[in-house]
Amino acid sequence: MLRTSEMLDSPSVNRDFEMALIGRSPPDEAALRQIEDGADHVLAEVGIRFEGDLETVDLWRQNGGIVKGDHVLLDGPRLRKIIRENAPESFTLRARNPVRDTSIGAKHAPVFAPIYGAPNVLLENGERSSGSLSIYRRLVSMAHAAPALSNTGHMICVLNDVPETVRPMEMALAHLTLSDKPFMGCIASPEAAVDVIDVASMAVGRDATDGACELLHLINATPPLVYKDNPLKVLRAVARRRQACMVTSYMMMGATSPVTVAGTLIQGYAEVLAGLALTQLWSPGAPAVMGLFAIPFGMKSMLPCYGDPASHVVQIYAVQLARRLGVPIRGEGGVTSAKVDDGQAGAEGARATAASVLSGADFILHSAGWLEQGRSVSIGKFEREATAIAQLYGIEAGESAPPLPLDPRLESELRQRIRM
Amino acid sequence: MLRTSEMLDSPSVNRDFEMALIGRSPPDEAALRQIEDGADHVLAEVGIRFEGDLETVDLWRQNGGIVKGDHVLLDGPRLRKIIRENAPESFTLRARNPVRDTSIGAKHAPVFAPIYGAPNVLLENGERSSGSLSIYRRLVSMAHAAPALSNTGHMICVLNDVPETVRPMEMALAHLTLSDKPFMGCIASPEAAVDVIDVASMAVGRDATDGACELLHLINATPPLVYKDNPLKVLRAVARRRQACMVTSYMMMGATSPVTVAGTLIQGYAEVLAGLALTQLWSPGAPAVMGLFAIPFGMKSMLPCYGDPASHVVQIYAVQLARRLGVPIRGEGGVTSAKVDDGQAGAEGARATAASVLSGADFILHSAGWLEQGRSVSIGKFEREATAIAQLYGIEAGESAPPLPLDPRLESELRQRIRM
Repeated sequence: MLRTSEMLDSPSVNRDFEMALIGRSPPDEAALRQIEDGADHVLAEVGIRFEGDLETVDLWRQNGGIVKGDHVLLDGPRLRKIIRENAPESFTLRARNPVRDTSIGAKHAPVFAPIYGAPNVLLENGERSSGSLSIYRRLVSMAHAAPALSNTGHMICVLNDVPETVRPMEMALAHLTLSDKPFMGCIASPEAAVDVIDVASMAVGRDATDGACELLHLINATPPLVYKDNPLKVLRAVARRRQACMVTSYMMMGATSPVTVAGTLIQGYAEVLAGLALTQLWSPGAPAVMGLFAIPFGMKSMLPCYGDPASHVVQIYAVQLARRLGVPIRGEGGVTSAKVDDGQAGAEGARATAASVLSGADFILHSAGWLEQGRSVSIGKFEREATAIAQLYGIEAGESAPPLPLDPRLESELRQRIRM
Repeated sequence: MLRTSEMLDSPSVNRDFEMALIGRSPPDEAALRQIEDGADHVLAEVGIRFEGDLETVDLWRQNGGIVKGDHVLLDGPRLRKIIRENAPESFTLRARNPVRDTSIGAKHAPVFAPIYGAPNVLLENGERSSGSLSIYRRLVSMAHAAPALSNTGHMICVLNDVPETVRPMEMALAHLTLSDKPFMGCIASPEAAVDVIDVASMAVGRDATDGACELLHLINATPPLVYKDNPLKVLRAVARRRQACMVTSYMMMGATSPVTVAGTLIQGYAEVLAGLALTQLWSPGAPAVMGLFAIPFGMKSMLPCYGDPASHVVQIYAVQLARRLGVPIRGEGGVTSAKVDDGQAGAEGARATAASVLSGADFILHSAGWLEQGRSVSIGKFEREATAIAQLYGIEAGESAPPLPLDPRLESELRQRIRM
């Protein structure tokens, strides 16, 4: 086996990844073992910091971690064992309208959700404006109307005109009244996450069962090799409620992870292994999705280079690493660095989506609307991509049926919480 | 087994193709057998017309064909046997500069060639003009300079300002003086094809060997189930010179082939089976590439809908059918219906290229410059796509080294032939 430091720069390893990309030689057992072994080495010798959350550190101490302050050395094979023995291979996200329930996992069709986290909006007339509540509500309605999107996501744009404390409930209200599809949970704080879980569970109104939940939450590591306190606390709160976490390492290759594909896979896999194991230690059997999202970082522009094929290779390997863990895997939709919906935007976005779908990703985030390195959601690109995904995956054209009305008592309770 | 007429409309067969597209279930033995059986049924009961070329019809009579006029019923398993026993799995296209020789086949990296056959050109300033000799020469230089393109193709644009009889030599002169990469042969007539083979062989200047030749020729069937006289005569002339033919069925689904993916695969496979077997009957062991290029035809617009995913599914199955025959397979690059290089052009082109590369296609035509249903070559899109392919497949950035000079005596001989 190569040592980690050698692997990071091994041209032969990276050449294999290129070959995988061109479809001649899919990731093989030996290459995947190299990534796992490399990650085990990183976990055992470098470890991961869990900042500001003593409960997490205590939990590791009770489960074989070697703890120094908030810094923990971990045993990779043991983490994999915990995940394999407990995490479900697939699970169902339940919707207000039961016909819109979706299952997430290798045996099911991929789920597409819109862009997540855009501070700005590019309107049809070419104008660029700050994200707002009214635009957010329009985007949720668009996501509901698009047959291609079986999940309306979460923060399609930022609600810059709404106080931060009120945003979680405003967003939940939009998803629960303007759509009856499944959507994603809140991660602003553990309290906000639980509040939204409460209202979503009430709105869905079906008893809890194993293998089914209402909300999927995006939990990000903070590469390199760190988890911050808020994601850790949200992860714990969500897992204990038996709701789903999508544990992701979102890496800038060359800045927050090694510049090579192999090094990035090793670091990111080490990070998500720790996060996924935490979901199962807090709540064995809680649904969890793995995600590795890696973008080369331009040293000249000091910006991430979305659309670079290195990201696709990471995606292809991530799917296989997740299959070996027995958990569903995230993919990325139309991510691009382009500033308008031109040939670059179309090509970069389509290639990223193709890499996700063809490699077998199960939950594909940022499927519609992404522009400008994710700093804007484009109304035009949103519609173009939603149409293309529907056409590509044989979904009937036309709009989704209007959402079932939300129980008026629940709606008024929600509106009251917003006023508080 | 389903009868052909049932297969054409079988939703279950088409659903399998969709699943193959989304990467969950690659084409399996049973589905491929269904296509082969369907094609055998078409060949035996409907047959193929070979128009205006008695030599071809006679050849079939001597090789088990049931001949009525120019209409021949054929035995599919026998055609497959002829192809499998004689056609090479891979071959080398030789260049003037030996370091630019490329091998074509499943064990080699894919070869990318530019758009073929565009009557018009879209210039950088947005102007649309008729293809001309001066633009053609510029495009050949661009193809040479692009590291991504290891073949400079043939008719990148039409030479509308040059008499038809002179075009073959003008094009050959451009490829032989402005580049030293391999390029594609002429199919205007058998005489022109042989003239260009002569000069290309002289320019390459290496002795003939088995498994290596200078030129690849695009030989199209005329669906449904017809070969015209000129392609048949060119195919014979080329095969007898041990040069390569790319035998393609280029189908408009719903117009010149059944509207379904299954029906189109069956018809197109039947057509190319006949053409590929002809290459081996005329010249056992002559290099041959298979191609199925299928585009849904819009019944409202009366135009082909490039970018439709049905084309990608045909591509994915075509690769597997060719692998079973033991011949290299064609793929399509950035084909699109878009009229400018916008988001639609980028996405449709990138998806088509991804389907070709990821499915394992060996020779990818139309890789750079295609716009407007192939009626224009776009200078901007050509450069964008050539750059993207280089980036995607790890080819070093920067321009190719300038071409080796052509032997002045050969160049002056070529120029004399053009004046004649």
